[in-house]
Amino acid sequence: MTMNPRKTTIVFKKGITLRNPILIVGLPGIGNVGKLVAEHLRREYKAKKFATLYSPYLPDRVVMLKNGMVKLSNNSFYLLKASKNVKNDIVILTGDAQGISSRGRYEINTKITEFFKEKLKGSFIYTIGGYTPGNTFVKDPKVFGSATSKQVIAQFKGSEVVFGKSKGFIMGSAGLIVAFAKMRHMDAVCLMGETSMLDVDASAAKAVLLVLAKRLNLHIDLSKLDKIIEETAKIIRDLERQVSVGTQLEKLHKEPEAHPSYIR
Amino acid sequence: MTMNPRKTTIVFKKGITLRNPILIVGLPGIGNVGKLVAEHLRREYKAKKFATLYSPYLPDRVVMLKNGMVKLSNNSFYLLKASKNVKNDIVILTGDAQGISSRGRYEINTKITEFFKEKLKGSFIYTIGGYTPGNTFVKDPKVFGSATSKQVIAQFKGSEVVFGKSKGFIMGSAGLIVAFAKMRHMDAVCLMGETSMLDVDASAAKAVLLVLAKRLNLHIDLSKLDKIIEETAKIIRDLERQVSVGTQLEKLHKEPEAHPSYIR
Amino acid sequence: MTMNPRKTTIVFKKGITLRNPILIVGLPGIGNVGKLVAEHLRREYKAKKFATLYSPYLPDRVVMLKNGMVKLSNNSFYLLKASKNVKNDIVILTGDAQGISSRGRYEINTKITEFFKEKLKGSFIYTIGGYTPGNTFVKDPKVFGSATSKQVIAQFKGSEVVFGKSKGFIMGSAGLIVAFAKMRHMDAVCLMGETSMLDVDASAAKAVLLVLAKRLNLHIDLSKLDKIIEETAKIIRDLERQVSVGTQLEKLHKEPEAHPSYIR
Amino acid sequence: MTMNPRKTTIVFKKGITLRNPILIVGLPGIGNVGKLVAEHLRREYKAKKFATLYSPYLPDRVVMLKNGMVKLSNNSFYLLKASKNVKNDIVILTGDAQGISSRGRYEINTKITEFFKEKLKGSFIYTIGGYTPGNTFVKDPKVFGSATSKQVIAQFKGSEVVFGKSKGFIMGSAGLIVAFAKMRHMDAVCLMGETSMLDVDASAAKAVLLVLAKRLNLHIDLSKLDKIIEETAKIIRDLERQVSVGTQLEKLHKEPEAHPSYIR
Repeated sequence: MTMNPRKTTIVFKKGITLRNPILIVGLPGIGNVGKLVAEHLRREYKAKKFATLYSPYLPDRVVMLKNGMVKLSNNSFYLLKASKNVKNDIVILTGDAQGISSRGRYEINTKITEFFKEKLKGSFIYTIGGYTPGNTFVKDPKVFGSATSKQVIAQFKGSEVVFGKSKGFIMGSAGLIVAFAKMRHMDAVCLMGETSMLDVDASAAKAVLLVLAKRLNLHIDLSKLDKIIEETAKIIRDLERQVSVGTQLEKLHKEPEAHPSYIR
Repeated sequence: MTMNPRKTTIVFKKGITLRNPILIVGLPGIGNVGKLVAEHLRREYKAKKFATLYSPYLPDRVVMLKNGMVKLSNNSFYLLKASKNVKNDIVILTGDAQGISSRGRYEINTKITEFFKEKLKGSFIYTIGGYTPGNTFVKDPKVFGSATSKQVIAQFKGSEVVFGKSKGFIMGSAGLIVAFAKMRHMDAVCLMGETSMLDVDASAAKAVLLVLAKRLNLHIDLSKLDKIIEETAKIIRDLERQVSVGTQLEKLHKEPEAHPSYIR
Repeated sequence: MTMNPRKTTIVFKKGITLRNPILIVGLPGIGNVGKLVAEHLRREYKAKKFATLYSPYLPDRVVMLKNGMVKLSNNSFYLLKASKNVKNDIVILTGDAQGISSRGRYEINTKITEFFKEKLKGSFIYTIGGYTPGNTFVKDPKVFGSATSKQVIAQFKGSEVVFGKSKGFIMGSAGLIVAFAKMRHMDAVCLMGETSMLDVDASAAKAVLLVLAKRLNLHIDLSKLDKIIEETAKIIRDLERQVSVGTQLEKLHKEPEAHPSYIR
Repeated sequence: MTMNPRKTTIVFKKGITLRNPILIVGLPGIGNVGKLVAEHLRREYKAKKFATLYSPYLPDRVVMLKNGMVKLSNNSFYLLKASKNVKNDIVILTGDAQGISSRGRYEINTKITEFFKEKLKGSFIYTIGGYTPGNTFVKDPKVFGSATSKQVIAQFKGSEVVFGKSKGFIMGSAGLIVAFAKMRHMDAVCLMGETSMLDVDASAAKAVLLVLAKRLNLHIDLSKLDKIIEETAKIIRDLERQVSVGTQLEKLHKEPEAHPSYIR
């Protein structure tokens, strides 16, 4: 299939069949909690990439890879097959960017929700984000939840996830995918690690990971966890620095889109 | 019906029939006068929600509800049925946001106007807004009006609404819906409470409420009015604070959409 | 015809036939030179409005009129019929705003050029703008020209219009309409009054008016000209002040469209 | 053919047949390295213009030419025919601007890639850009590369191009065209001259030119090279100054596109 970069498109291997898959979405956002969780799961469990979303609503950035080749900014789907312990196939969605306009984020996340329901026949979605309660430094991060229904909330009874105590808005994929899942009669929950507005908050990610591992029956070697999370955080921080240089460059030359001398 | 979040859509119960309905539009804007009026009417008269507008031109925000569930940013229609005193069914439109671009506001307000005329068979629209005359503090707020025709203005003879004395522009739904109603040969008026640029101006809202109550023959318990308005204002102010935190967060990371080093 | 505000549309009286019409375009821009010239011609010669362009790419502003009624921001076409002295029907295009994005200006000005060629069967277009040569104060403003062809430039031989001495770019309708006319094999010229970056530059407008009057054989009462131009300038300045207040209000609440915490 | 300015369109002479063409893309960007290289090749080898890309995603700017005529901002294709030394027809793409939004750049660069593959039957693309390693002043600029495949990288064995040592993102045409070429199974490489963030970096351009000349077997008179590059740089700098004045003007009047008082 030749891809048309003008449209939001998910390229995937035809004929893939998953076993009652659940989706975990972790993209850049507040504290990078979502991205940190998704990258950790992907690396730790050696999940295999099987689908890629491209979109003209993502930033027009091409990543320079260490092997000398290029990669267009995208969101990628990774697969962790079900096993003796883990009953569901787990699909992990992560990437280096979200859409750059509100309208673009509507388009991209509608596509993701449709793809998971119609192509992958999935039934449950976790989105991961960060939540900033205020100006205080967070020592023991809680995990807040917001869900599609009372039934989903009930499933977290006995867990450490706190529902109904976080205020305000969830922005980007973490919120939209849960809202769009609700419209399509799917179950979904947004799990938010409490964060002190760090750029890359490893301790908020750890809190969410512990909740997820228990829910999904994923084995986690606690003695290694801290070390691995910190390594993942370091990789993201390196990426941050490079983007930061790029953004600085852009700001130097920023030109207004609107020409208000035309508007009187 | 499965909703497609890519399009501006109004989801409503099929088969609803209204009795000569009038529409009152009160959305966020200057002094939050419109939102304050609409929320007050909705709460005071226990109007029932019967339709919801979703749009990719609204901000991509998902509200965390107190019951632990999510709600996508939207504009909602509430119904106050006609009674012995009130001859018309009254439809109240309010929400937590307006469209985030001029083009999006054209799209959303065209949809609202079409829906009211074609689906609800409505014939008269009130939009509510705030009007800032200058830098002086407003003590006794006037109510200014701008209408679709002389006939509509004539209906306000004897009322306290001042026509032709406000200058400049009405922006957002409060203006567009009146202009679009005119194009579709409907009657409409924008009522603007005079405001001193407060974020939430309860006294400007009260001035408009008194005008509306008289026009629509709504009973208002004057002894309770001030207290109720202030309670409504408090709820909106709380919401304001949460959005304000969200906005601060976004500003921290703002990236330019245009890359002007490309434009020489 | 019911207008659809979602599309850029020109509403006009069917069956109108013009006599070899020429178009003069004067919209808001540098020094408001174009708008000043167009408004002056329209008022002085009592040109009659016969067509209106609406567009979702114009700002979503509704003007409050002195008669208490509303008017959606638009661009309007006025007609000055040919007479003994004036051989061509003259169409004047002016308005309170230009499109608010580059893409919107492409759409609106394509529509204008098509309308003039296909519906009005026009053959020559003047666009009027301001030109800022540098930081010096301009005492005796020159008139600079930029045209679609050598043949058009040759028509200005003997006039005071200077071709090929202005540098840089023409932005908005003044430039786009000339470029689009060239693509459609029409003749067009942009006449630019030299301006010192005033908001409303009456003396630059006067320089262009004198050139236009001679070209079009319009009678101008020189003894009254200065007074009338200054009156027109005053009306525009009043409008400016109102827009300026509106813009201030908007800036107070500006929210970023892009959420760069999503882009890493 | 009448052009429709609403769409991204490439206007070209029908019936043109090229001999195994390669494409060199040099547009405005970091250090103007790409533009400098493309302009140098075009002037030095007297390449002939044969196709022009117009787009509503380019800025709405009309250039005032020295001959008194207008030219719409565009990207142009120039042809340098194959000769005894040069085996391939060389197509040079340059212009005064890139698209002004990320989405627009997706559209424009998809069009360019399609045009080169389907209409020109081309098979290899060079895009030229600048690369800023950090804050240090670059004395002897290196040339970094990023390519579509290992096979392309292997072709540069023995050259001075360094693959896999540059980090971060390539933005705009220089990156997108290589990524889109990869999607369409074409070979492409981005060559980046190391630059110290000058506006017009002649020495980074020279480094890339030397690499290109050797690869394409173009004869370069080294004794004249420095002088010619500096002349080209001067022409671009003059253009820069004019744009800079235009941008200043726009900033004076910038009006926000979003009206956040609507978003609560």
